[in-house]
Amino acid sequence: MIKVVILGGGNVAFHLTKHLLKSNAVTVAQVYNRNLSSIAYLKNEVPITSNINELKEADVYIIAVADNAIAPLSSQLICNNKLVVHTSGGSNLNELKSQSNKGVFYPLQTFSKDREVDFSIIPICIEATNNNDLKILDLLAATISKKIYHINSKQREKLHVAAVFVNNFVNYLYKIGHDICEKEHIPFEILQPLIKETSQKINELTPLASQTGPAKRNDTKTIKKHMAMLTKNQQEIYTLLTNSIYNTYGKKL
Amino acid sequence: MIKVVILGGGNVAFHLTKHLLKSNAVTVAQVYNRNLSSIAYLKNEVPITSNINELKEADVYIIAVADNAIAPLSSQLICNNKLVVHTSGGSNLNELKSQSNKGVFYPLQTFSKDREVDFSIIPICIEATNNNDLKILDLLAATISKKIYHINSKQREKLHVAAVFVNNFVNYLYKIGHDICEKEHIPFEILQPLIKETSQKINELTPLASQTGPAKRNDTKTIKKHMAMLTKNQQEIYTLLTNSIYNTYGKKL
Repeated sequence: MIKVVILGGGNVAFHLTKHLLKSNAVTVAQVYNRNLSSIAYLKNEVPITSNINELKEADVYIIAVADNAIAPLSSQLICNNKLVVHTSGGSNLNELKSQSNKGVFYPLQTFSKDREVDFSIIPICIEATNNNDLKILDLLAATISKKIYHINSKQREKLHVAAVFVNNFVNYLYKIGHDICEKEHIPFEILQPLIKETSQKINELTPLASQTGPAKRNDTKTIKKHMAMLTKNQQEIYTLLTNSIYNTYGKKL
Repeated sequence: MIKVVILGGGNVAFHLTKHLLKSNAVTVAQVYNRNLSSIAYLKNEVPITSNINELKEADVYIIAVADNAIAPLSSQLICNNKLVVHTSGGSNLNELKSQSNKGVFYPLQTFSKDREVDFSIIPICIEATNNNDLKILDLLAATISKKIYHINSKQREKLHVAAVFVNNFVNYLYKIGHDICEKEHIPFEILQPLIKETSQKINELTPLASQTGPAKRNDTKTIKKHMAMLTKNQQEIYTLLTNSIYNTYGKKL
């Protein structure tokens, strides 16, 4: 049985707490948050606190807070021989300033409080400074997910920027599609099967092999027609991505 | 029973033929292609021809060829009182030069020959110049799909450019994610649950509400760190999309 204390009240902490509470191989000894009201919903299930000096004993302390709060919060933790981990994709292991062993427990997913997630398919990227701690994180991750990866801080930084491209930036392109539809009174749902298929295709083909469209085939007539329909910001994005695609495939042909 | 002749041998013609052949409410009278070898696989199921002067009688002639071939091919069709349609998202109805009634039958999806598609959920965008023809296309579309939309040429042009953003450009962002992973020996599959969730989230929330990430929260420290890890082309895309997101949400806050 692994005993954990969770520190944080945001989206990651919310989903992590919920799933670890369900696990038979884990005891959630306590949940801490600076602001008690955002974890008050847990008070009948697990001890909660807003006092950092009253943390209970545990094997692993999971810090699931905003990136810039990892250092100040962890610096207050004195738990020699215990393991303190953060859950951030964008932060080095050394952001942890606790007097303790250190590690990372990064669930690579986008979380919203009001959306259920299937944790069992979420990749958990773990890192530790010694094999024993890595084993503990392996066990902990296995209680909630089937997908566990050993990823070091340098790799995780790269993974985090890759995630920005395939998640944040992709969502912004969806927004542009939504804006164009809205302006023409076209229901956005028309695009949803296409969006779904585009995201599924890359499970079988590489994105390089999946690429289609006017930019790839250098269809200048269509490109010119499209450009005339767009706002200035949309034109900038259209031009840059069209040129990038054209350069990629121009070189390959 | 609607009788159709399909003209074309590409991906759209392939999937359309396959699904119309299965429909009990449609007879595929013939499939035409300039190059007979690419439709030879159909010869035991349906009459095929490469001679445009030997087209059989039908109610609807479906031209599923490259955009720039629609005008030259359709100009050869003399079928008064019959309906000739193209299947292109990016082409006006008037690209059809046939002596006939005219319409559009545009299945909004990305097709690859080696990937099965569930046609029943593919939006079919139809257009015709009179109500009777529109009714025929409604009936025809209903034999293969549950999602039928009446979309005029102006709307369809906009829809087509929106599709470039949410499909072609999104796929290119997946490619950048793939490139970054490959360089660091990180399996791309780690990003796939995130890609899936990003594409599914917008079924419930608008893309505007779904947006997350360093650009939205103006996390300049993370943005700077990310920029230092990217190639020149990746930096250009990162900067433009980050500024676009920041400007969108900066104005909203």
